[in-house]
Amino acid sequence: MHRTRVRIVEDALDANNTIARANRADFDREGVAVLNLMSAPGAGKTSLLEQALGAPLPGGARVGVLEGDVQGSLDADRLADRHVPVVQLNTAGGFGGECHLDANMVRSAIDQLPLAEIDLLVIENVGNLVCPAEFRVGEDARAMVCSVTEGEDKPLKYPLMFRACELVVINKIDLLAHLDFDLDRLLYHLDAVNPHARRMLTSARTGEGVDELREWLAALAVRAPAVL
Amino acid sequence: MHRTRVRIVEDALDANNTIARANRADFDREGVAVLNLMSAPGAGKTSLLEQALGAPLPGGARVGVLEGDVQGSLDADRLADRHVPVVQLNTAGGFGGECHLDANMVRSAIDQLPLAEIDLLVIENVGNLVCPAEFRVGEDARAMVCSVTEGEDKPLKYPLMFRACELVVINKIDLLAHLDFDLDRLLYHLDAVNPHARRMLTSARTGEGVDELREWLAALAVRAPAVL
Repeated sequence: MHRTRVRIVEDALDANNTIARANRADFDREGVAVLNLMSAPGAGKTSLLEQALGAPLPGGARVGVLEGDVQGSLDADRLADRHVPVVQLNTAGGFGGECHLDANMVRSAIDQLPLAEIDLLVIENVGNLVCPAEFRVGEDARAMVCSVTEGEDKPLKYPLMFRACELVVINKIDLLAHLDFDLDRLLYHLDAVNPHARRMLTSARTGEGVDELREWLAALAVRAPAVL
Repeated sequence: MHRTRVRIVEDALDANNTIARANRADFDREGVAVLNLMSAPGAGKTSLLEQALGAPLPGGARVGVLEGDVQGSLDADRLADRHVPVVQLNTAGGFGGECHLDANMVRSAIDQLPLAEIDLLVIENVGNLVCPAEFRVGEDARAMVCSVTEGEDKPLKYPLMFRACELVVINKIDLLAHLDFDLDRLLYHLDAVNPHARRMLTSARTGEGVDELREWLAALAVRAPAVL
């Protein structure tokens, strides 16, 4: 029973990777770099994007966003207010909804994306620290947002997510003074599971660290080796 | 393709419900009430349990905890320090790990649970606002913890989770003064998806509201109609 289950999952991941490569080829054809942005619910992905994309990126790279949500278009509406081209992708089906984006869902949205008019596509995944890390969608890089309010133990509890990412953005640092949170301990745990991850400290609320994130996004848009 | 997929999921949920009923029968035989406790990662489930279970419950109900995590036993260790009987259940397999507990996983742990020695079993689910709400595990009641740091929009973004629960615990209220968070708006959104949910305001850090949670757990342990 257990072995059958693992086999089904492996087949599903194989199929997913095949479609992810097709997505990748389409993005390459249009010269679009792609970021898969992940986090737990409420860590601040959308707020950070609102801050980071409110003004043109350094170097002038044009950005589009694909918003993944179980249902609704709240986040897409927020980003559309910033005049960023944004496409909403909902994962709700006949059952409770998918907890992650997969390559096929992203593929279903490719036609609606203005690929010819952008240099960087940010795919905002469903808020979840488990399954999104298992499904490639055709991205160049993966980043996650981790809020200091979530505690220092998260890299140990969700190691696949922290290991999958080139960049870990530690957000809501404006709250540090009001929390029993040991930043060194979070970084120590992050080192244990992914010593190579670039890390950044940000506050979407105060804007601290957002320029560094903007520089990183700009470098990703031109696929600079420092990022990839 | 899509129809086949929905069919597979429905079959899986049917099988899950059958096993959940078997769990329920086992819990009933031992006179154990069961709570399925859910939240996003880092919302404070374990911290609240540490506070709520640090002293005997009103009425003297005896509590055990089943800890669901992708991997590791950090939370179980924290609760064991409070002298609560706790069993760890890890969902990590050959792939990235399951993002939720299902009835079969809980069933696999039943033999290790000291059912004859407890009146209430709290099952702490994997931190995730999507899939845990889809899988019954044989519980009497479902509760979720929602942190004020996650934003007011979460009931609209994860309606199945908020709809599934008899109790919504709004945690980390000690941080309200430091956030741009509108509590009335969260409650308004909660009313929209689940007007019947009992709600509580808590801070695991200051202990505010924890007595109310302890009273609710004590009532659940004797399966009081006010709770169920």
